[in-house]
Amino acid sequence: MQLGVCYYPEQWPEEWWADDAARMAAMGIRYVRIAEFAWSRIEPTPGEFDWAWLDRSIATLHAAGLRVVMCTPTATPPKWLVDSDPAMLAVDANGQARGFGSRRHYCFSSPSYRAQSARITEAVAQRYGQHPAVAAWQTDNEYGCHLTVLSYSQAARQGFRAWLQAKYITVDALNTAWGNVFWSQEYRSFDEIDPPVGTVTEAHPAHRLDYRRFASDEVVAFNRIQTDILRQHSPGRDVTHNFMGFFTEFDHHDVAADLDVATWDSYPLGFTQDFFLSSLEKQRYARTGHPDIPAFHHDLYRGLCTGANKGRWWVMEQQPGPVNWAQWNPAPLDGMVRLWTWQAFAHGAEVVSYFRWRQAPFAQEQMHAGLHRPDRSLDQGGLEATQVAQELLAIGLAATGDAAANASASQARVALVLDYPSLWMAQIQPQGADYNPMEITFRAYSALRQLGLDVDIVSSRADLKSYALVVLPAHLREDAALAARLAALQADGTAQAVFGPRAGAKNQALSFADGLPPGAFAALAGVRVQRVSSLPPGVVDAVRWPDGSLSSNSHWREDVQTQGAQALANFDDGRPAVLRHGSSWYSTGWPDEAGWKQLFTRAAAAAGLATQDLPEDLRTSRLGNHVFVQNFSSSTVHYAPVNHAQCLLGARELAPQGLAIWKLSPSI
Amino acid sequence: MQLGVCYYPEQWPEEWWADDAARMAAMGIRYVRIAEFAWSRIEPTPGEFDWAWLDRSIATLHAAGLRVVMCTPTATPPKWLVDSDPAMLAVDANGQARGFGSRRHYCFSSPSYRAQSARITEAVAQRYGQHPAVAAWQTDNEYGCHLTVLSYSQAARQGFRAWLQAKYITVDALNTAWGNVFWSQEYRSFDEIDPPVGTVTEAHPAHRLDYRRFASDEVVAFNRIQTDILRQHSPGRDVTHNFMGFFTEFDHHDVAADLDVATWDSYPLGFTQDFFLSSLEKQRYARTGHPDIPAFHHDLYRGLCTGANKGRWWVMEQQPGPVNWAQWNPAPLDGMVRLWTWQAFAHGAEVVSYFRWRQAPFAQEQMHAGLHRPDRSLDQGGLEATQVAQELLAIGLAATGDAAANASASQARVALVLDYPSLWMAQIQPQGADYNPMEITFRAYSALRQLGLDVDIVSSRADLKSYALVVLPAHLREDAALAARLAALQADGTAQAVFGPRAGAKNQALSFADGLPPGAFAALAGVRVQRVSSLPPGVVDAVRWPDGSLSSNSHWREDVQTQGAQALANFDDGRPAVLRHGSSWYSTGWPDEAGWKQLFTRAAAAAGLATQDLPEDLRTSRLGNHVFVQNFSSSTVHYAPVNHAQCLLGARELAPQGLAIWKLSPSI
Amino acid sequence: MQLGVCYYPEQWPEEWWADDAARMAAMGIRYVRIAEFAWSRIEPTPGEFDWAWLDRSIATLHAAGLRVVMCTPTATPPKWLVDSDPAMLAVDANGQARGFGSRRHYCFSSPSYRAQSARITEAVAQRYGQHPAVAAWQTDNEYGCHLTVLSYSQAARQGFRAWLQAKYITVDALNTAWGNVFWSQEYRSFDEIDPPVGTVTEAHPAHRLDYRRFASDEVVAFNRIQTDILRQHSPGRDVTHNFMGFFTEFDHHDVAADLDVATWDSYPLGFTQDFFLSSLEKQRYARTGHPDIPAFHHDLYRGLCTGANKGRWWVMEQQPGPVNWAQWNPAPLDGMVRLWTWQAFAHGAEVVSYFRWRQAPFAQEQMHAGLHRPDRSLDQGGLEATQVAQELLAIGLAATGDAAANASASQARVALVLDYPSLWMAQIQPQGADYNPMEITFRAYSALRQLGLDVDIVSSRADLKSYALVVLPAHLREDAALAARLAALQADGTAQAVFGPRAGAKNQALSFADGLPPGAFAALAGVRVQRVSSLPPGVVDAVRWPDGSLSSNSHWREDVQTQGAQALANFDDGRPAVLRHGSSWYSTGWPDEAGWKQLFTRAAAAAGLATQDLPEDLRTSRLGNHVFVQNFSSSTVHYAPVNHAQCLLGARELAPQGLAIWKLSPSI
Ligand SMILES: [Zn+2]
Ligand SMILES: [Zn+2]
Ligand SMILES: [Zn+2]
Repeated sequence: MQLGVCYYPEQWPEEWWADDAARMAAMGIRYVRIAEFAWSRIEPTPGEFDWAWLDRSIATLHAAGLRVVMCTPTATPPKWLVDSDPAMLAVDANGQARGFGSRRHYCFSSPSYRAQSARITEAVAQRYGQHPAVAAWQTDNEYGCHLTVLSYSQAARQGFRAWLQAKYITVDALNTAWGNVFWSQEYRSFDEIDPPVGTVTEAHPAHRLDYRRFASDEVVAFNRIQTDILRQHSPGRDVTHNFMGFFTEFDHHDVAADLDVATWDSYPLGFTQDFFLSSLEKQRYARTGHPDIPAFHHDLYRGLCTGANKGRWWVMEQQPGPVNWAQWNPAPLDGMVRLWTWQAFAHGAEVVSYFRWRQAPFAQEQMHAGLHRPDRSLDQGGLEATQVAQELLAIGLAATGDAAANASASQARVALVLDYPSLWMAQIQPQGADYNPMEITFRAYSALRQLGLDVDIVSSRADLKSYALVVLPAHLREDAALAARLAALQADGTAQAVFGPRAGAKNQALSFADGLPPGAFAALAGVRVQRVSSLPPGVVDAVRWPDGSLSSNSHWREDVQTQGAQALANFDDGRPAVLRHGSSWYSTGWPDEAGWKQLFTRAAAAAGLATQDLPEDLRTSRLGNHVFVQNFSSSTVHYAPVNHAQCLLGARELAPQGLAIWKLSPSI
Repeated sequence: MQLGVCYYPEQWPEEWWADDAARMAAMGIRYVRIAEFAWSRIEPTPGEFDWAWLDRSIATLHAAGLRVVMCTPTATPPKWLVDSDPAMLAVDANGQARGFGSRRHYCFSSPSYRAQSARITEAVAQRYGQHPAVAAWQTDNEYGCHLTVLSYSQAARQGFRAWLQAKYITVDALNTAWGNVFWSQEYRSFDEIDPPVGTVTEAHPAHRLDYRRFASDEVVAFNRIQTDILRQHSPGRDVTHNFMGFFTEFDHHDVAADLDVATWDSYPLGFTQDFFLSSLEKQRYARTGHPDIPAFHHDLYRGLCTGANKGRWWVMEQQPGPVNWAQWNPAPLDGMVRLWTWQAFAHGAEVVSYFRWRQAPFAQEQMHAGLHRPDRSLDQGGLEATQVAQELLAIGLAATGDAAANASASQARVALVLDYPSLWMAQIQPQGADYNPMEITFRAYSALRQLGLDVDIVSSRADLKSYALVVLPAHLREDAALAARLAALQADGTAQAVFGPRAGAKNQALSFADGLPPGAFAALAGVRVQRVSSLPPGVVDAVRWPDGSLSSNSHWREDVQTQGAQALANFDDGRPAVLRHGSSWYSTGWPDEAGWKQLFTRAAAAAGLATQDLPEDLRTSRLGNHVFVQNFSSSTVHYAPVNHAQCLLGARELAPQGLAIWKLSPSI
Repeated sequence: MQLGVCYYPEQWPEEWWADDAARMAAMGIRYVRIAEFAWSRIEPTPGEFDWAWLDRSIATLHAAGLRVVMCTPTATPPKWLVDSDPAMLAVDANGQARGFGSRRHYCFSSPSYRAQSARITEAVAQRYGQHPAVAAWQTDNEYGCHLTVLSYSQAARQGFRAWLQAKYITVDALNTAWGNVFWSQEYRSFDEIDPPVGTVTEAHPAHRLDYRRFASDEVVAFNRIQTDILRQHSPGRDVTHNFMGFFTEFDHHDVAADLDVATWDSYPLGFTQDFFLSSLEKQRYARTGHPDIPAFHHDLYRGLCTGANKGRWWVMEQQPGPVNWAQWNPAPLDGMVRLWTWQAFAHGAEVVSYFRWRQAPFAQEQMHAGLHRPDRSLDQGGLEATQVAQELLAIGLAATGDAAANASASQARVALVLDYPSLWMAQIQPQGADYNPMEITFRAYSALRQLGLDVDIVSSRADLKSYALVVLPAHLREDAALAARLAALQADGTAQAVFGPRAGAKNQALSFADGLPPGAFAALAGVRVQRVSSLPPGVVDAVRWPDGSLSSNSHWREDVQTQGAQALANFDDGRPAVLRHGSSWYSTGWPDEAGWKQLFTRAAAAAGLATQDLPEDLRTSRLGNHVFVQNFSSSTVHYAPVNHAQCLLGARELAPQGLAIWKLSPSI
């Protein structure tokens, strides 16, 4: 458990650098990320590199005992590069090139930009790959930010045709797989196929899905060019990329296959304002963020790396105060920066790195707080970071930071499957204007967390052996391999599987699953979906549970034919809302919070997992034999974990924004 | 009264065809519409036709005793055609060509596409024009769907200039008619005139209106090329086109002049979600649809054909379950497909044809239900279609289906005038952001229906002799001919005319009617409009009626000078809300439901028509000496028509989604 | 105090002209504005002028004793001009030329259009510059209407580069000033710099701000070409331009430096519907307009001219009835046209000129009322204009109209500073989606008016010596000069300064003010801003005042460090909402009406100004020794000013839409 910070020496007078480094070290910061937007300073003129300032900057950090996370600067190609090669620009759905003047203006498919990206990566890696201060590398910055994965350039068009040819071999195979007989959409050659934009009404869903897959693969390929170069020139250093929140434009599991550590950029207040929460939730959580937004991503990114790197993750950018980019940007309540930092450690983060050391007084992000204000004074975030560093030392957890020790300490017995192709399927074919697959996934996750359960968010390829409860809130993709693994898991014991609506509904070409949904999951779930409804806002169906209590479904409803499953909860017309078939549970609709809790409480019990109904906005996380109790509410709450032995930090009484860390008694 | 179905043999294995046909016949289906999107299968390579599969498919249907409705495939030109002639594409208001990859991507004005359309129509008509199975033809599919009437291509620009020259002869005449002295908008030649798009603020209203007229004429011309070919090669067969709901981009009366039968595509739930209903109505009617949406269109399309074909109409596509294309797509309640089918027959449909026989498992409409599911199992819609077929036989109404017998049986005494140019005028110049002329027309219609009145929706050219009450809810166009016919009608007896606000307000160039609104209707209405208000949401004026009851006006308000008319209902400031002048009634605003009912109850009484206040969401339709009672509510209702003699189907007690058919006693 | 009218002889039969003129004179109208859209009639063919009709028209008006306000017709270049020089068109942010067919389609930066503009101005000025009827000139019409200030043409691009070079001399200086090291945005030459559009995410704020400044300067330069020509050919006549409401696209103070009189176009109902009022306010004021919308602009435009012309202003276009261009267009209540006219005089207008004499029956504005209807009958607005003319005569105020006598009679002791660059800064960097600097300015103004205070709205360069209270609701721009003048003012006596949030926060390059906000105002305000929050809708913080009363803040919140200031009102967490530091007051947030009133009541008292809590929607204005009492409410109100001597018009009892004019006793 270590702290880090993002730092831009090129933005500050050189006479401040040594003082900055000294104060970082004094504050307890160990890692410093630099240079990810510095191309125009590294190469101010084509081919002429200026390393001097960067050499001195790294030396200064090194001298203070700090470890550098070095970045490739490819997210911001300078103007001279754009002017010399305008075809490198991404092109939007209207055919307009996305211009210079902010960032991420390149097209992932551009061969010339890939070459430029390799050239600058090689230059930086050669210069600093063996530098003793350099501990890790970050490729580029926030792939896909500002909707930059999908480009409709000529390069993308050519790339897509080649990608399709490689996948389908013959155009007849493609026509058949997509169902192009519909509306005379048949092609006679791959060269007739354009990107799926500009159509009169919606473009073909299989066409759109393959374009999403292609675009995701382009991100993977672009990233791999850099990781290959970095591994060659800087062996032994961790290579990472900083992912984002609620972001689905490319398959993160695929990109992570080339990384040692997954990192992500955690802005709880910005995400609360900009995503799918209701306006009441946006008000309620304006100054704390929704408690499960950071947790959800911590658990997601902990599941990204595999093999020897399994469970390795950082927060690369931690919100330190108000930001500038959300629709509204409140300041966090005092204590939230500390609470968020500890929350990340509680979920297994190796490093929490704040963005940024000091607020810039100029340019697009000048209203984005840092640990310090533009006048060099320490801001509230800096105060709280200092407190965390001291607390880490005080309770002896800092020592656990360097290695991957924490990562494997997660003992979650609940797996929630998140599958990017399934998300794309629902986004392409929502069927109801507000059917957001990320939202239903998040709502299911949040209900699990409110029941006191620790959760691993895993890919569809994950090994499920250690889990007692597997949840698939939005796994639209027909997935026979996963179905087989679930069946094997259930055969072995008491493991339970919970399917959300639309599970297994679509085959690889976004057509109907064989024999009606849930396709490959039908044998497990014991149902066949006969028809579906998407429900307009305000249409809500009551759901009655065996104990007489009621919950509500909205958004989506399925009428199913049971094939072995038994109705557990029913609508007023007697049709099943939730069914159980042995160790499998199927929800025919989109439950509210009460409905998810009813369902998970029962499934967890069947799986042998204890649940608790935590106080509102209180969350707990177990890591190794520690339990971290986090109070996101505006009230004082009393809480202690079952079988607690010792309180390391805080107490049974948690003030708003309060935290307690407990050691469990050895018996459990 | 016959049933039909839409079928796509090219989308299914040939080994299923015979079974499909046999089951259609067994189910009681008589008509099968085919081939309207099959161009890429009919002509997979330019100039090389593949008739074999279609020959076999038609033969299979024929062998089962089914009658084929053959279509021209021009709504979906294949990719090879687009690539060989990109100028055939429609162009949007931003100058972008509307691309391949869905449907309706052609420009109605393209000479080359008109030639292609004639060529393929000729080919299909020559092949099947005399085929004994072919009972009727459908041209293209849903003209204008996805906003495809207005195109801004070079061809449209040239066509528009020629159209203007033919209309105005000299550009000075155009300048004068439009009022181009305003804002220095005068032209020196027709070649200076561009389509009315891309202007800094709103384009000239007369310019826009003529462009709408031109675009509508282009649809008529495009369609006539096909109907001429079809009549030449397939004499004796009905030629139709399938129109859509709430669709106003071209003048349907003009297109219908070239048709034998008007057909339309009825999707009650989709229209309920996608059009102007309030969000409370969208919730309330989510699973039944608003009861008057199908009825309104049945009555509209019954009024489309003229002469020997007067009153002839079908439902070409009947919603059979949930669809895919609305904002939200709930499944209809059980019983609704049956109720909708009977509702169409009650309004005089010759044929109700379901879309589609079987849900496609792939492509854009895979979430659109059919009578069967993708796995060939019978869906709820199929069950209910079967029930209707059996009921038709049981009560002896099936026999009435083939001929045009029903059509003339409508005995509506109320005519509601719907005038496409008037709709365009209000759309171009709404004056208030939510002034939708289709909505006020529909609201007036719905009030009439709630009073138990049968309604013919007619064009402004219709013969009005048989009507006791003529309603003009949104007839903005100054129409001296109609005024004269109304005056003659009133002179003959007790016939009443009801004018909505804005009646007769605009001349042919969308300028003020002579001598202030209501222009040519002023002598009838006995008022002159002095000023108008459009009212923002929430501004509502109370209207007090002679019986002391109150209703509310919103959206629109006129201050009138009376010229003979007497105030019937007043606002709180004493100004008239509704006036009467002999046999004419004028509403100065946009009434709510209570206001329309007050007005129509009085006007109907003056016209000698009995009204009743039907139970909520109950509707009745008289056809010949039958009365069809339809319960769209969620409650059981008791109802029997006055002077009923015999109940043929159902009973006095109607469950939700229930239907009863009564025979009237001969005395009436 | 004189009346005027806008008139379009070219739109009416010549045989009506003499009658129109006679009736204008009889009604009491003195000024007639003509010809501002008449280019196509003045020069129907390139280079061939038709002066005859205009000569006769002016002669007719002259013969009736009317004074002509002559216009340059440059807002509507005719089609032949556009076709001969398409590069003169403005270009939108998507790169599309803004086409012919409405108005204002030119680019201010186009050299060729500037030449055309000079040519036609020269022609008109030569023809009529010395005409005895011509009393004044208006340049163009409503600069910037329909968002036409910002253009992205090639001419604008070239002009911007030259403008930047002139400002920064070297590109290094620009890079440093803007902070282009951020995100590698550094340029190597001015030729690399494009307009700030088309970027992937937000463009650089300093880049945007300089583009706004450049575009504003282009308007000034365009206008000056015309004013130079007019002064040369028509010396001694007033030159004006008609500005608009809530319009911020260019710096009005800069344009006014070249004018003799500021005029503006007052449409109270349209502005009420189209701007930032809440939907409840839009309903409540639908038929009267918000009382402070006209007043705010009267006070703003009265402050525009300087030097010998200080305080000179007119209403050039006064709403006479319902208009056509707002989202909704209600008719004003009877009496409102009279009340608005008197309100303008009460604020010091020399002339109130109605738009327009007669409603046009055709083209875009046919639904815009005039003093007469299209059929030549007198409309309600005409009746009320006549009444005002008679009242002016009756109470002897008409005589004061010709000279600038009224202008200097304003004795407001409150100055509200409105600074266009500050508005641009907040628009570019709102930080919260609903932070509208014009709204907070207007809300502060309205609170002052509700306390019975007269207000001068002044530029940041204004002489403040005569003011007791200076209010800066949204002065984001760091402004050392203003700070120094405020300090001097306070040093001299009891004058008070009130700062809204964000005051002085930004330097000239839209970077942080030195030493944290409020920058140059820090010494006055006695605070330093430590962090800021923008607050989503519904997040409201209670503010507790010394008297125990509560108000609410929303939208914005600052945490400040006090440097001498004392908290006056606090949030529930004890942090200050409003602080006082000697004669300066600082609000850390966006107060509601109650909060502004609390603050201003105290500051006014400290300044020695008496305030009163006026009845709801009643307003008073003092002009010389007259007080004008205006009742915008829907209730009868009793009110008389303190120290009144004589009631010239009306009475103590004011009916809705009522007006009273009082003479004050000489003692005060
Ligand atoms: Zn970031
Ligand atoms: Zn259809
Ligand atoms: Zn105007």
